[in-house]
Amino acid sequence: MAGKIGLNVTQICLPRECTEDEIIEEVLKLNEDPRVHGVYLHLPPASLTNKCILYYTPMEGRTVLVVGGEGPLGVALQCLMQRRGMVVLHSRRSSEVLQKQVCTHRCMRAHTHIHLHMMSGVGPLTAALRMQNVVQSSSRWAQGQQYRPWTLRSLKLQPLSPVPSDIEISRAQTPKPVDQLAQEIGLLQEETEAYGRTKAKVRLSLLDRLREQPDGKYVLVAGITPTPLGEGKSTVVIGLVQALSAHLKLNSFACLRQPSQGPTFGVKGGAAGGGYAQVIPMEEFNLHLTGDIHAITAANNLVAAAIDARMLHEATQKDKALYSRLVPSVNGVRRFSPIQIARLRRLGISEIDPSALMPQEVSSFVRLDLDPAKVTWQRVVDTNDRFLRKITVGQASTEKGHVRETQFDIAVASEIMAILALADGLGDMKTRLGRMVVGSSRSGQPVTAEDLGVSGALAVLMKDAIKPTLMQTLEGSPVFVHAGPFANIAHGNSSVLADKLALKLVGEDGFVVTEAGFGADIGMEKFFNIKCRASGLRPNVVVLVATVRALKMHGGGPNVLLNAVPCHHWARGGRGSVELAQAVKQAGSQPSHFQFLYSQETPIVEKIRMIAQKVYGADDIELSPEAQAKIDYYNQQGYGKLPICMAKTHLSLSHLPEKKGTPTGFTLPIRDIRASIGAGFIYPLVGTMSTMPGLPTRPCFYDIDLDPVTEEITGLF
Amino acid sequence: MAGKIGLNVTQICLPRECTEDEIIEEVLKLNEDPRVHGVYLHLPPASLTNKCILYYTPMEGRTVLVVGGEGPLGVALQCLMQRRGMVVLHSRRSSEVLQKQVCTHRCMRAHTHIHLHMMSGVGPLTAALRMQNVVQSSSRWAQGQQYRPWTLRSLKLQPLSPVPSDIEISRAQTPKPVDQLAQEIGLLQEETEAYGRTKAKVRLSLLDRLREQPDGKYVLVAGITPTPLGEGKSTVVIGLVQALSAHLKLNSFACLRQPSQGPTFGVKGGAAGGGYAQVIPMEEFNLHLTGDIHAITAANNLVAAAIDARMLHEATQKDKALYSRLVPSVNGVRRFSPIQIARLRRLGISEIDPSALMPQEVSSFVRLDLDPAKVTWQRVVDTNDRFLRKITVGQASTEKGHVRETQFDIAVASEIMAILALADGLGDMKTRLGRMVVGSSRSGQPVTAEDLGVSGALAVLMKDAIKPTLMQTLEGSPVFVHAGPFANIAHGNSSVLADKLALKLVGEDGFVVTEAGFGADIGMEKFFNIKCRASGLRPNVVVLVATVRALKMHGGGPNVLLNAVPCHHWARGGRGSVELAQAVKQAGSQPSHFQFLYSQETPIVEKIRMIAQKVYGADDIELSPEAQAKIDYYNQQGYGKLPICMAKTHLSLSHLPEKKGTPTGFTLPIRDIRASIGAGFIYPLVGTMSTMPGLPTRPCFYDIDLDPVTEEITGLF
Repeated sequence: MAGKIGLNVTQICLPRECTEDEIIEEVLKLNEDPRVHGVYLHLPPASLTNKCILYYTPMEGRTVLVVGGEGPLGVALQCLMQRRGMVVLHSRRSSEVLQKQVCTHRCMRAHTHIHLHMMSGVGPLTAALRMQNVVQSSSRWAQGQQYRPWTLRSLKLQPLSPVPSDIEISRAQTPKPVDQLAQEIGLLQEETEAYGRTKAKVRLSLLDRLREQPDGKYVLVAGITPTPLGEGKSTVVIGLVQALSAHLKLNSFACLRQPSQGPTFGVKGGAAGGGYAQVIPMEEFNLHLTGDIHAITAANNLVAAAIDARMLHEATQKDKALYSRLVPSVNGVRRFSPIQIARLRRLGISEIDPSALMPQEVSSFVRLDLDPAKVTWQRVVDTNDRFLRKITVGQASTEKGHVRETQFDIAVASEIMAILALADGLGDMKTRLGRMVVGSSRSGQPVTAEDLGVSGALAVLMKDAIKPTLMQTLEGSPVFVHAGPFANIAHGNSSVLADKLALKLVGEDGFVVTEAGFGADIGMEKFFNIKCRASGLRPNVVVLVATVRALKMHGGGPNVLLNAVPCHHWARGGRGSVELAQAVKQAGSQPSHFQFLYSQETPIVEKIRMIAQKVYGADDIELSPEAQAKIDYYNQQGYGKLPICMAKTHLSLSHLPEKKGTPTGFTLPIRDIRASIGAGFIYPLVGTMSTMPGLPTRPCFYDIDLDPVTEEITGLF
Repeated sequence: MAGKIGLNVTQICLPRECTEDEIIEEVLKLNEDPRVHGVYLHLPPASLTNKCILYYTPMEGRTVLVVGGEGPLGVALQCLMQRRGMVVLHSRRSSEVLQKQVCTHRCMRAHTHIHLHMMSGVGPLTAALRMQNVVQSSSRWAQGQQYRPWTLRSLKLQPLSPVPSDIEISRAQTPKPVDQLAQEIGLLQEETEAYGRTKAKVRLSLLDRLREQPDGKYVLVAGITPTPLGEGKSTVVIGLVQALSAHLKLNSFACLRQPSQGPTFGVKGGAAGGGYAQVIPMEEFNLHLTGDIHAITAANNLVAAAIDARMLHEATQKDKALYSRLVPSVNGVRRFSPIQIARLRRLGISEIDPSALMPQEVSSFVRLDLDPAKVTWQRVVDTNDRFLRKITVGQASTEKGHVRETQFDIAVASEIMAILALADGLGDMKTRLGRMVVGSSRSGQPVTAEDLGVSGALAVLMKDAIKPTLMQTLEGSPVFVHAGPFANIAHGNSSVLADKLALKLVGEDGFVVTEAGFGADIGMEKFFNIKCRASGLRPNVVVLVATVRALKMHGGGPNVLLNAVPCHHWARGGRGSVELAQAVKQAGSQPSHFQFLYSQETPIVEKIRMIAQKVYGADDIELSPEAQAKIDYYNQQGYGKLPICMAKTHLSLSHLPEKKGTPTGFTLPIRDIRASIGAGFIYPLVGTMSTMPGLPTRPCFYDIDLDPVTEEITGLF
């Protein structure tokens, strides 16, 4: 039961010598803590004064239970309490009993452990007398944990003509306080973490609470032949959700990617939609948001610094010196850290006493022996900085001549971004971060982030980034903003977790509208074959933005909406998309027959060929010798079953940006192939794809300004 | 009146054709908006139905005034309402009248403008009848804006022995919800922006509200001879504040720097204090906090990308092409942006019609003519990445051979960090960002961030970073965390703004304890001569950590506490620092006679010599030819009056880290001199100072891990 409804089972423990006042204070604190649903208090009879009892009086929805005895009844009661999610103050002995059971109910993400030392208990009769009360209140609490119907209040829009600039429209609308929005869509108070007044991170514990809740309808918005400015799809997503929620009064949620600051200050400007179909406040959406991309940058560059520092240290130290530094004696004791024990396991060394390793084992433990020419990990910045496309590092005298050519990518191209977008929980993200391959050793073995000892730190840096950010549209409908991989050089879809949370929140009859980047040939193909494969989710409806072509291809299945449906969301907001919303609603009620384009078991070359032929319309593919060699290497390393993430221009179905329309009669050249083992895909490079955009002569930052008195921003559009 | 107490003057406007229901909805929304203190409603008589009147009934502390007439009385009433901070719904005509007046009262930081179109009004009698009510409620509201006495609730500490690890201690304490803490210390709800449950940014509007409030006592904690691990001072600051607030029951505030992630994952570990004197949750303090350093990194690197891209564009385009790109024709109109007009002014060009510039003017406008060898701006990362100490950029073929040697610094060494720490408001920060010198032209003229057109974007990127972050100590006392410049390579003090906000909040009898980085020779000297000069604040008490030496030097003045006072805050929390707190309280009650070590008018060389002789005990200084040439250049550019920020090792009073104690008989070599014009100081380089730390063989990330189930972090210490 506890596992199912996500009750909080927590042990609160007081020191043996604590005074009555201290106990009271502790209990008062519990009463104020929204994560505490009841207190089961095990106390010496002497402390049961009137004053105590007064304070222990149950608050609304919570219970303080005074109970005692360590005999069978006492333990039975405690177990019951635990199943009901009570907070238990109890003796050391029963603490141990509970500890075990607590470990089997790990839905209590936010709880605090404090270890307990208590004296003897009171009699079981006292306990029995209060039992009914406990059960009632915990049952009330359990009801509060169930799915909550929405009470969404739409924001009125009064569109002006001509349509003002995006930032003027955004500023003219007052967003609802984000805690109010969260309450309207059925989030519990403890499930959100506000970041300012208009953004909140949503905790993943929601997935536990609503585990039994059926998903809503899953709608994909994809496009074809985007312009270099990329407008269109996000605006359709937002307009559609505004129409569904504010006009058709259906629960609905938009899921969008967080934009990179590169384009924001470069050519494209903001990415929060446009006109009367926007996420607001658009400047919060376009700037730092809740810091996820910054966290990715920090994590990515910690790996990079660790790689170069490690190569230098290995090159300048003997095995023994390396070993004594990597496993130092602390107060006379040498011990492997858990991350190091994991590496020993991978090396097949079962010994965990540092002094017992054989010299050969020491050597293989301390030497990653990374080949500088085979480091595939790059540094990143979230800025369009073209001068970092190819650089030489290590030129200071302190690096003793260990120079190396490398590059910076834009932060959203980092494998860590792809992992954030594909992970289905904190544990999964941590595992993926650990298995990221950063290069290979001189003997050809892959070297991972875990080998570098950095995987725990990466998970720590990313612990908040994994929670999607809740915002709202101009009409007050909810939006998740989470992850932002580019679609040409990465898999181009917002996060699996945001979609999953939203599908639970909208309820069975609701709609979640998510977006695949760039054209259907890349964003949508990757949505189906990479994102859906990772998430296990299947779309019910696909909306194609712009002219419709022969696109019922990628595994067929979901209902493709023929967009003869006119949309005026840009000029009119949700009201302009009501027809589309009705069409989506209609399509969502029909069964869909989704299937993947290829099976994971298909060999790498065949998978690439299927995408090239069936999606791009190529005659065939042509592998460079490098690409062929990589395929052989990946097969040998056991990576052959990973899905394919093509890195291809988004401006043509082919590899040549200038070939518009539906080109035929071409052979797709595969220049090279790389692997994102943590993210879980193989990515072939088709033609020349830059992973670092540049700034134009007149970047949009020329127009961006801040009034220091009103704090109003101008020039973001 | 409005200007002084910060009343909200807002115009809410409805479309001419709105229905009664729409009006009611608008008014209901206003009633729920905490920023709205009253509504002055100007309506056609027809809408004054009973239903309307019912909804317009004043809520507690707010007033809805139904009033009309555009004659003299109507306008007079509106003006009165405006002075009282009322929200005014009124006709278009009076809207214009008010608009002007609103512009003269810009204390209403958080308000929203919506433009109004209304029909005729009701008679003035109706207005007069409700007048008294309005005045009463606005006066109630004005009272709420005054200084609020604290109601701080301390958290109980039960120190264990032996003392557990820092993260265990931090985790064992449940912090108060940050909104509760904010309320306890007299912050208004609208003055905070929560970031999660335990951190909140505090808005600078507080300084307006408490302008008339006298400052508390200002206490500086400085140290001498720090160990490379830097422990000591932060812990004293926190222990002292815990003692003052939780044990002596005096209002007090700690002001600390945000730690760089470089040391956190490198050698030092966390920087949130230690033992039972910590800021909690320590992992939140040590990781991304509220993203300020990330914002600095993004802003700093945008400048860097703009520099290299601009040099490339100037090198590859003729004047005409540059001009047509920099000032493009949009819908047939060419216009300079405000940032470009500012540049024209600096060039002495008064023309603002792009087509009217002479060819020579076009050329000087489009060409910054930056000398690649004289670019002083560096890129930054907040990672200990030694391989970026010296690099070559621009090696990709797309950069056409424009390679250049440069370097990355650690993010906290960025001039933008120094600006954040020294700015006294958003306007001041923006001005400083614009005047940052990034290098010089081939003709020797300084080139600024504003010349690059990027100053507005920088202010936008930094708009949230300028608000200090509120956290708490283990005993629940308030802490501001804000800015984090290193003290050896920068000025090493937390922000002026955090200190100013805290001094207002603690009230006249309260204490603000702030910290200067590293030893008194650098952190404290810079506190006096740079930070105090910028802020106008003067310390009342100085606490020196560690053995006391002959340190009543740097301008003398404030009471130097002889630390014979034993402290046990690490093992016992605030209770262990009560004696120190009493000594500080005593010292704070005595008058102080602060004076600067040097006058700004003193020539650069003399200022450096005074610091070297009077603070470090050097016999004299010795300038390299480069240093002498720079001094001549800075004097010529008018930078001679700036204060001095010595970049010197923190491990010795001299320039040689190995010289311990009080070295004498040495001459201080000044290798080079640089200038941070935006931050406002000249910084001489003494000996070799690295601006990028490295990772050791076994960085502390080996110990850092995250339990994906409990979300508990281990290994941060």
